This record gives sequence, C-alpha cells and structure tokens, in this order.
Amino acid sequence: MKPSIPSGTRDFGPAEMRKRSYILNVIRHNFELFGYQAIETPAMENIATLTGKYGEEGDQLIYKILNSRIHESKKKDLLLSEFKLSLETSRNSNELTEKALRYDLTVPFARFVVMNRNELVFPFKRYQIQAVWRADRPQKGRYREFYQCDADVIGSNSLLNELELIALMDKSFLDLKLPVTLKFNNRKILTALADVLGEPEKIIDITVAIDKLDKIGKEKVILELKEKGIGEKAIAGLLPLLDFKGSNTEKIELLRGLIGTHPAGLKGIDEITFLLAHHSSKHIQLELDITLARGLNYYTGSIFEVKATAGSLKSSILGGGRYDDLTGVFGLPDTSGVGISFGIDRIYDVLEELALFPASVQSAASSQVLFVHFDEPTQLYCFELATHLRARGIACEVYPDLSKKLGKQFEFANRKAIPYVCTVGSNEMQNKRFAFKNMAKGEQQELSLEQIVEQLKS
Amino acid sequence: MKPSIPSGTRDFGPAEMRKRSYILNVIRHNFELFGYQAIETPAMENIATLTGKYGEEGDQLIYKILNSRIHESKKKDLLLSEFKLSLETSRNSNELTEKALRYDLTVPFARFVVMNRNELVFPFKRYQIQAVWRADRPQKGRYREFYQCDADVIGSNSLLNELELIALMDKSFLDLKLPVTLKFNNRKILTALADVLGEPEKIIDITVAIDKLDKIGKEKVILELKEKGIGEKAIAGLLPLLDFKGSNTEKIELLRGLIGTHPAGLKGIDEITFLLAHHSSKHIQLELDITLARGLNYYTGSIFEVKATAGSLKSSILGGGRYDDLTGVFGLPDTSGVGISFGIDRIYDVLEELALFPASVQSAASSQVLFVHFDEPTQLYCFELATHLRARGIACEVYPDLSKKLGKQFEFANRKAIPYVCTVGSNEMQNKRFAFKNMAKGEQQELSLEQIVEQLKS
Repeated sequence: MKPSIPSGTRDFGPAEMRKRSYILNVIRHNFELFGYQAIETPAMENIATLTGKYGEEGDQLIYKILNSRIHESKKKDLLLSEFKLSLETSRNSNELTEKALRYDLTVPFARFVVMNRNELVFPFKRYQIQAVWRADRPQKGRYREFYQCDADVIGSNSLLNELELIALMDKSFLDLKLPVTLKFNNRKILTALADVLGEPEKIIDITVAIDKLDKIGKEKVILELKEKGIGEKAIAGLLPLLDFKGSNTEKIELLRGLIGTHPAGLKGIDEITFLLAHHSSKHIQLELDITLARGLNYYTGSIFEVKATAGSLKSSILGGGRYDDLTGVFGLPDTSGVGISFGIDRIYDVLEELALFPASVQSAASSQVLFVHFDEPTQLYCFELATHLRARGIACEVYPDLSKKLGKQFEFANRKAIPYVCTVGSNEMQNKRFAFKNMAKGEQQELSLEQIVEQLKS
Repeated sequence: MKPSIPSGTRDFGPAEMRKRSYILNVIRHNFELFGYQAIETPAMENIATLTGKYGEEGDQLIYKILNSRIHESKKKDLLLSEFKLSLETSRNSNELTEKALRYDLTVPFARFVVMNRNELVFPFKRYQIQAVWRADRPQKGRYREFYQCDADVIGSNSLLNELELIALMDKSFLDLKLPVTLKFNNRKILTALADVLGEPEKIIDITVAIDKLDKIGKEKVILELKEKGIGEKAIAGLLPLLDFKGSNTEKIELLRGLIGTHPAGLKGIDEITFLLAHHSSKHIQLELDITLARGLNYYTGSIFEVKATAGSLKSSILGGGRYDDLTGVFGLPDTSGVGISFGIDRIYDVLEELALFPASVQSAASSQVLFVHFDEPTQLYCFELATHLRARGIACEVYPDLSKKLGKQFEFANRKAIPYVCTVGSNEMQNKRFAFKNMAKGEQQELSLEQIVEQLKS
C-alpha cells in the first residue's frame, strides 16, 4: 500500500513548521500585547450550530461526521429511509450525522460567548488560532484544511475597537516586515447606496457583484448587476463608484454626494472619517475602497481587507469587519462585535516569495550541537555532556547509533544543519577537553565543557 | 435555540488556555532541547491509512467523514445499496466515506515518514502536538477530542534513544515540579515468558490480562487468564510475577529464574539492566514493573508508563515504548522506532489538584495596564499611550466604551485581574503625568509615561 493524504490537506515538515510558528508567534504576541485572550473550541460542533450561518453554498461545504456504530443500530430500516431522504433532499438527518467540522472560528466564537455569557467580562476580547475545514475544490492556495487566526472584541460598539484593530494590524505587519495596504469601507454606506438607488432589497446582490471588481473588472460587474435584476437607473448610479480614482478625502466627497441625507449613510461616513483622523498607523497604508464589500453578510459597519503591496499575490491576506448581531441566533441579541482574521497560509506564501523569514527561521538546524563518539563508553559520556548542556538551556543531541564512522556522524550534522560538532574519544574523556568544531567556518578548538557553554551562550 | 457542544468535547476559556499553554510550552521546550523537530499532519486521513491499525475495537472508534455533496451524485442507487451493505456488514464504502479523523499521532507519523523517506535524515526525531478524536463513551477524564503530545525517534535501534527519552521525561516532569515514577518493562521478556510457559500464541491475551493487575487485582487477572484459555500450568508460572514485591535488582533475578536461557528473554533483561545502569535521572523514580504490558501490540522492546506519586489520579500520565516495524504496513520495513506520549489532560488535572501551576499562570490578567478615561479626547489620548507601551512590549488595553463612570472602569480592571490602572483626565493630558494605581496594594502614584514603563519593566 502506497500511503497518501486526502486531496486539499497538507503535512507540515520541520522546516515549514518553523516558518509557520514564526508567523503565529508574531501574531500571537501582538494579540496578547493588545489584551486579547486565547480560547479554543472543539473541531466538532453540533450540526445545528453551523447550518444556516454561511449561506446555502457554505452549508454544502461543511464536512459532516457519520454517527459511529450505526451498523449496531436496531433501527436499520429507519436509517435506510433517512439516508434515502437525505440523498433526495440534501436535508440533514440526525440519525446519520449529528456533528460537523467547524467551518470558521467566528460562529463557534459566537456560540462560546452565548454559552459563557455569565462568566465572561464584557467587552470580551478573544483570539483563536485553530484549523477549519471546508469541502471546497482544492486549488493553488486553497485548502480543505487550513488555519484561521482571529481576534474579535464583542460587547462594545465603540469605534476605539476599530482603531485598536488597525493598530494591531499595523504592528503585526511591521513586525513581519511585510509592506501592506489596509483597504477599508463601511457597510452602512453600501446599505445607504442601495436605498438611495431604489434597490434596498438587492443590497446583497449589489455588494456581492461590486466586491468582485478587482477580480473580474467593471464590465462583468455591470453584467452581473443586470443579471441579478438591478435596474438601469441604479446601475447608472453605481457607475461613479466603479470608476473613481482619487484620495481618501476625494472618495468621501464622492460618497457624500451620492448618499445625500441618508442617516445610516451619513453615520457610515462619520465612522470612516473618524478612523482616518485618529488611527496611529506607522507602517500600514490606509486606503478607503468604496467598492469593498466582502461576501459576509453579517457585517454591518466597518469592513477591512489587507493586501500585500509587494510580491505576486493579488488576493487579500487578512479580512474583517463589524457585525451587530452575531450572537442573536444563539439567543443573545444586540451584542455588537468587530474582528479580523489573518490568512496564515497566504502570509506564509508572501513571506517566502519575498524572502522575509529571518535567518534563524530559515535554518533547518534541529539543535546547536551534535556529540559524536567512537564506542559505547564515549557515547555514554556524550550523553552525560548533553544532559549538562540541556540543563543549561542548550539544545543538543548525541549521534544515536554506535560504531558509525566519524565521517558519517559529521555528515549527519551537515545534513541537519547542526552548527557545532563536539567529538569525544577516550583521550577527550580523560582530559575533559573536547574537539569543538564550528561547521560553517570549518574551525576546530579544544575546549572544556564550561568554555563550550560560554561560547554557545554568547 | 440554546447552543451546546457535542458530548465528550470541550471549550477552553482563557484561564484554561493559559494553563494548557504552560504545560505544552514546558514540554515543547524540552522536546527542542533534545533535538526533536516539530511536524503536523492533517486532521483528516484517508480511511485506508487508519483502519486495521488499532485492532477491531479501535476501528469502531474512528470518526468517519461523510463524502460531501453525495445528494448531487448521479449514482444514488449505488449509494443506497452501499449504505445498506455497510449497515449490514460494518464494511466501509468509499462511495460514502473516504476520510476519517486521526485516532492517534503514531500512525499518521509512520505514514509521514514513509511518504517523506527520501527527504528525511535518519535517525529522525520528531515531536507532534495535535488533537485526536475517538468515538469512545465519554466519562471523567476521557474525551472524544483530546490532545496528544508525542516524541519519537525512528530509524535507530540503539538503546541510547531510550536513555535520552528517560532524560527527557526526567527534565520535563522536573520542570513541571511534578513528582512521578517511571514504570518500565520490556516486551521481549513478556514474549519469552509466554514461550517458556508453553503459550506463545496467547501472548496478547496474557499481556492484556496482566496489564490490568493495577486496576482489577490479582484474582480477576487469573480469572481472565482462565477465560482466555491459558493453561493451569502457565497460570501457575505467571503467579510469582503477580505477587512479587522487591527492588529492581530482585525483580531482575526473579525474571532470570523464570526465563532461563530463552535468547529474546535474556536480551530483554540485558536491555533493562543497561537502562538501569546508565540513566541520568535526578528527579524521576525508575521502577521495573514486571506486569507492565500496555495494550498496544506494536511494542516490541522497552515499555514506559509514568504515574504521578502525589494526588489522587491512579491512571498513567505518559505512555510509550519501542516498536520494530511501525512503517512496514506502509511499505518501509525493518525500521525501528521508540517514542513517548504525554497525557496533557491528565497532567493538567494533577497539576491543578496539587496547585503546581506557577502564580503567573494562575493569574487571569489579560494585560498589565488598563487605561481609563472620561470622554473621547481622553480616550484617544489613552490610545496613544497604549500604542507607546505596546511598542515597548507591555501588554495593555484601553477601556473601549465611552462615558462610563470611573468606578465601572476600575471594576472592569478588577474583574479581569489587570494589576495596574492608569487614569487619564484633561489635567493628566496637559501635564503628561498620570495617576498610576497598583490594584493589589491600592497605592496610587503620579508618574510620567517613561516612569510607568520603567516600573513595569523592572
């Protein structure tokens, strides 16, 4: 049997793990600097928790888990008819499957907040870094198992939260040394536009279509708007948005003109103006993108999207926004939240392309020192030396097999990129001075164990 | 709808996450000190990778994932008959389910090694910390989703690897300040005993039965041996093992007497003697347990099990051993490996019971400083101050809502256990000196931002 893994999933070997950990550690450190607290939720949720939250298309992408031991059930006729029914209608049957793999971290977070509402201190700031699963068609950069890396604050409608999230993005991408633009918009403005243009019921169709401007171009957006039954007049009203080039201030003036006195629209413009006036970004470029909508229909205020300004990746590496009623469906209404989600896999690809991983992360070294030896007594002595170094916080290993030639042991160090090799023969054991070789420089010194510790610690 | 999570799964809130991270960081740090390298494998494996590896009972506990979009299939009659067949025979059908959730980390590791055999440098030392899923009946301390935390070295049959693993356990439990005993045995001795007692085919039944001695007592072990058809003479031969109390040396003498000149048995005794002679443990107690067998039939040499010697938990908190042919089933024969698996959930429970989590981990503080304010200008000024502290590596937050009374903001700090509160009014803004309160002592000082940084950094 030739082993394989499911299409759309990945193994991460030591080199990839080191790079992924680097990214996650930078982001986690910043989450904590901003007072976000970690939570984790189970991979499996009850199906009822997930269905109906991601639209019809999303529901089809949820992985369902077959109930265990169904072949031991005494209700086999029922199971069979339920299975037949679910084949015909795509309706779910609890007799067959009760649990599903989480599709994102936002819905489980909302479920968590409602279940723990009496213990949590609101406003509650949480971060969560876990895998999610989607039965999507795999393609370059799109996986069936991937990590999400989310920060949200729930229970506060203050715009300070948006300012803090912008500062969090700013510092994270600065620490990653990745040049980026933060595109932002406000859902209230989009809603006002749909109202003003006489198509309030078509707000979702409008946002879905104009959100694709980057990818499919203006002509196709117009075509899609027509197909969705948006009137000629409304489309004509949207055209200025699709074409407009200008500064953030000029865009705001354009929007003011389109929106007139629409109260929600004016509120949206106020919010945008506030964020532009008070954000503290040193690294990130803020760009008001009046066509930015993002597919997620639960957004009700700010919308965020980050793109790298170097490298070949065109799609976004972070998304987020404000939602006013995420927990309502679980029985906790009127709770506003805002959050962002870092796209770890894409950030990885961009850092790789731009060679932005630090040298220490690039190195494949499993440890700092390899101890090599000649026989069992010298190997056991190496083990003692290694125990000593580890107690001092120095990662090291002893070549595990006996009776291997020195050349083979040195080759092992080379292939594993271990920077130092310490050779221990019977003379070295007796004199307690060891041949300590810097593999990169090819230089060898005769040192005591204490001198080795000093050199490695400095 | 009242939300819930599937039985046997758990949410981890901020306090639990902090404690779990503490344990995992200690163990991860030690894995890396010993030269183990991280890998991760997908949650979903092909069903063929998992089935047949965990025994019949294990196969029943594997969670299978329903193929997506089966209701769109054109082969509905086939699906229906396949479902009927799988209900009748418990045989798996690829038409219905191709993927399953991983059941442990060992089989995915073996699959990984075989798939990457040409890139890996052997002996390969890997660690892996990920969730696994089992459709077991949930009970106290037994979950359907739990983490495993494994270190294995593959491609070396040297006993140095066992010595290193003992040193790794020693240092990890020392760092966790948890008093433990390492019980160990050797599968070769058990095999030899079955041979010598004339029951070589019953080796699995014998090991499964005597492994339960701790839990069910001697009488019931004997009963189980009889039920499994082990002869009277063989049972009489096993009795000395079940009764024996004595030092490690006395146990070895007993075994020598039972085993005679059986070559594998003598090899097992040599291995035990070697480990006792050369291990470097300072913290962990080594106890030869001649009835220790562990259920896993792939063990072929050393067997390890760690138990806490304080607290009420009777079950083991770590298990491991040597296996000579784990990768054979995937096409890479004759590859010996040895590894251990830390039981994170149980270690958590013991540390909790014994109050062994450090004070810093016990604290529920989300950050070091809360900035409190009176209105929008002072809040925005707090945001500037917070940005400054974060740039200096100090975790802090600004009370997000406006127009809340100071008392309410201080109460927020108290409930979140934030140790310092910095109050910013319009005078403070002007003078750039801030009311900085130590919440535990109740003392307030008037400090500049630089003085605050100094105090928090020291």
